Amino acid sequence: MPYPEEAEGFQVDSPETFTTFHKRFFKLKPFGDYDVDIKIEACGVCGSDVHTVSGGWGAQKFPLCVGHEIIGRAIRVGPKVTLIKEGERVGVGAQSYSCGECKQCKNENETYCPVLMIDTYGAQWPETGIVSQGGYSSHIRTHEHWVFPIPEALETNIVAPMLCAGLTAYSPLVRNGAGPGKKVGIVGLGGIGHFGVMFAKALGAETWAISRSRAKEADALKLGADGYIATAEEGWEKAHRCSFDLIINCANSSEGFDLEKYLSMMDVHGRWISVGLPEEAGQVIKAQNLIANGVLIGASHLGSRREMLEMLQLAAEKGLKSWVEELQIGEEGLQEAMLRMKQGDVHYRFTLTGYDKVFNS
Amino acid sequence: MPYPEEAEGFQVDSPETFTTFHKRFFKLKPFGDYDVDIKIEACGVCGSDVHTVSGGWGAQKFPLCVGHEIIGRAIRVGPKVTLIKEGERVGVGAQSYSCGECKQCKNENETYCPVLMIDTYGAQWPETGIVSQGGYSSHIRTHEHWVFPIPEALETNIVAPMLCAGLTAYSPLVRNGAGPGKKVGIVGLGGIGHFGVMFAKALGAETWAISRSRAKEADALKLGADGYIATAEEGWEKAHRCSFDLIINCANSSEGFDLEKYLSMMDVHGRWISVGLPEEAGQVIKAQNLIANGVLIGASHLGSRREMLEMLQLAAEKGLKSWVEELQIGEEGLQEAMLRMKQGDVHYRFTLTGYDKVFNS
Repeated sequence: MPYPEEAEGFQVDSPETFTTFHKRFFKLKPFGDYDVDIKIEACGVCGSDVHTVSGGWGAQKFPLCVGHEIIGRAIRVGPKVTLIKEGERVGVGAQSYSCGECKQCKNENETYCPVLMIDTYGAQWPETGIVSQGGYSSHIRTHEHWVFPIPEALETNIVAPMLCAGLTAYSPLVRNGAGPGKKVGIVGLGGIGHFGVMFAKALGAETWAISRSRAKEADALKLGADGYIATAEEGWEKAHRCSFDLIINCANSSEGFDLEKYLSMMDVHGRWISVGLPEEAGQVIKAQNLIANGVLIGASHLGSRREMLEMLQLAAEKGLKSWVEELQIGEEGLQEAMLRMKQGDVHYRFTLTGYDKVFNS
Repeated sequence: MPYPEEAEGFQVDSPETFTTFHKRFFKLKPFGDYDVDIKIEACGVCGSDVHTVSGGWGAQKFPLCVGHEIIGRAIRVGPKVTLIKEGERVGVGAQSYSCGECKQCKNENETYCPVLMIDTYGAQWPETGIVSQGGYSSHIRTHEHWVFPIPEALETNIVAPMLCAGLTAYSPLVRNGAGPGKKVGIVGLGGIGHFGVMFAKALGAETWAISRSRAKEADALKLGADGYIATAEEGWEKAHRCSFDLIINCANSSEGFDLEKYLSMMDVHGRWISVGLPEEAGQVIKAQNLIANGVLIGASHLGSRREMLEMLQLAAEKGLKSWVEELQIGEEGLQEAMLRMKQGDVHYRFTLTGYDKVFNS
């Protein structure tokens, strides 16, 4: 079988038609010495995919095939590849390249590289004019640093959403000290948040799920939460004043968000780290809001290669499983995914499967 | 000489008349077993004093005598006092009491005590109805924990401003790792900022002063700055992209402040800590602004007793001196201080002196 120079995938043409997917061939980037070709077997549906194709994050390079929670098989490795073996089951997440040379890249901060940032879809490969295309497709090609071996114990359709949502929750937990003796909150029980609860608990922290109503309480406890806070209830923050070491804010919207109450729950120099990127205008923050407990507010972007491998290892060892609803990839399944994601009607992630039924190559 | 039950001081009656000071007697809190009576010899004029009497921080308990950069002599110590000797030269800063029992108080975070926070002026002593009055006065009485022995090497009028402005700059520097190998910026070269530059350099950090124009460049270099950034100059942030470990924001106003440019200068997970409390409405912050480098935004409130003692020791050992203009305490000197502080016409702190000319007791 010849190596693919093209992949076949499902593209959206504009934000106005973001639920209409067109099956098309598109060109892959030129094959490099460190590249790996992957035949895709499954892909999670990330909130980013929906923000991107529906225009919520601003202008994009259409037509575009999204998807960056990719699991597949390495079918070809470049001559200088050492991290991946041909035939291995591997994953690709939301980033596919960085400069590799700067201070950040050399310090496991490659997801903060200020020199070159190639997202798995919608970014232009340097000197090629080729826009990267995601995992709602037959194949993907990228540098070995962004290709991750998948431990045997993790099922393909279950592990897929960990490649973006999982890592997005895991990195800020470990970078901000989640572990035994720490009280950690996870705001927003969606795709990222359900991993937040699962991983915070697995890392040994006292873990609280924080959601609007009590609707997800049973799920949260099943995921491992030690406690549950419903912010629709009067005085919800009072019992927790000055007690959280870390809260990971996974909320996908900042509408009606009373940040001051959340921050009042933080211990001195506690950390409030956002991983959601709401489409709204942002929040007004005064130094006065932060000074009562010297809280630190931050945001986190994906995670490093090392963190990805550690997270997969943790999941394998502890038997952690994403909560997944499978959808057959295709025009119909993708339309359903987009519409239900917009409505938050998913517990807690879709994985697209059945690639062999749709792609011949 | 009988011990004082009253102090005499200069009070303001309302924000509308904040430059008019009235010399009056007022009652001290009841003398407790851990209390120290201090005969005041000098007091710095803090930005907080002006914000408070002019109403910029909202409603206050008038009539009020402000001032919380106090140096004087301990003339009486309670029977259980162990930290202060009678006759010793001592200082009092912006806080005068906390619960002493909570997790924060027991962990050197007494300035973040969520149970009881008595500011040196304008707070009500529990169960007394007495509102604390500051250092524009003859005497002050408070708990030994908030009374600090002053090292011999530090002159009274020079050290006074360190008791609030100095500590406010020092605490976030040491809590956020300012030292050798770190690049630290100080935004706003005023009372707090001039200490920020001085202390960051004394702690061994590469120190940059950041100000609007070049007007204060010579001063900054004399204070110890390694470099100077003028934000009125086009492209000022570009050469420093992704390089600062820590910036202490001492700016007293957030008007026209382009936070995004400042944050672009922060290294990954660098920290932007505000110590000024501008009167304006605050800044809109989106997670998107923080995610490019995972920067942390925080604020800092004063500092602990231990940090106060360490700061005074550092100043004594390294011969660090506040830049002070002396003013004779009295109706006239205080009016001049308020008006010139409002205009930012001070380099970089007023100390009120000549207490013996004004108070007989």
